[in-house]
Amino acid sequence: MKKKGTKFERDLIHKLWENGFAAIRTPGSGTVAYPVPDIIAGNGKKYIAIEVKMRSKLPLYIEEQQIKDLAMFSSLFGAECFIGLKLPREDWRFFRIDQLKKTKSKYKIDADIYHLGIDIYELIGRFRQVRLE
Amino acid sequence: MKKKGTKFERDLIHKLWENGFAAIRTPGSGTVAYPVPDIIAGNGKKYIAIEVKMRSKLPLYIEEQQIKDLAMFSSLFGAECFIGLKLPREDWRFFRIDQLKKTKSKYKIDADIYHLGIDIYELIGRFRQVRLE
Repeated sequence: MKKKGTKFERDLIHKLWENGFAAIRTPGSGTVAYPVPDIIAGNGKKYIAIEVKMRSKLPLYIEEQQIKDLAMFSSLFGAECFIGLKLPREDWRFFRIDQLKKTKSKYKIDADIYHLGIDIYELIGRFRQVRLE
Repeated sequence: MKKKGTKFERDLIHKLWENGFAAIRTPGSGTVAYPVPDIIAGNGKKYIAIEVKMRSKLPLYIEEQQIKDLAMFSSLFGAECFIGLKLPREDWRFFRIDQLKKTKSKYKIDADIYHLGIDIYELIGRFRQVRLE
């Protein structure tokens, strides 16, 4: 599962580069003294910070502190921040913090809000063309 | 020497955070498929990419490919790029690519141009106040 996760993360990094973003995976948490997101990407106009999560099913719970850290880093650095969620047989979906459900001590992405997540093309500002017929 | 280098890099990261920049050290080269600089920092207005070098003495030689990679990443990401050089008993000094000397197949920082390097306060846009008496 760990290895699979890493492959999906690499795919995500690769897709960002393919679409004109310089993207990096940061060193694993615990190896750095400051809270940093998993991925930082920029294309000279838009800067993005992503915390990535891979789960076998919904809901996804996220610790409040992790959301605070992500928001703090992104605000200081100057980046829009997202939670990236990868479910089996689904593409990555990205959620803004204000889209998450708040529970007593955590944040949550469940089936109610999963459809609100944007895909990578929306994330990087290339909206897929909708065919009107 | 390796360990010392790491300490000086951590100090640099720490100083960036202290001065309002969110800064990260990227994973070591070789662990990533794309060329990335050693440090990326941002404060919402200014984005900086740094390739760090620690040497016991001058001159410092840098491979042409490494300079190209740094320039490419920074241009795509949207960051100013610098070579950060740490010499023993000296503070970090930062050099723009166009300040480096070009040799046949490498770039060089020698005693002639070392004084052109800016310090961390100039790097982050806080010029030290010069007292006029």
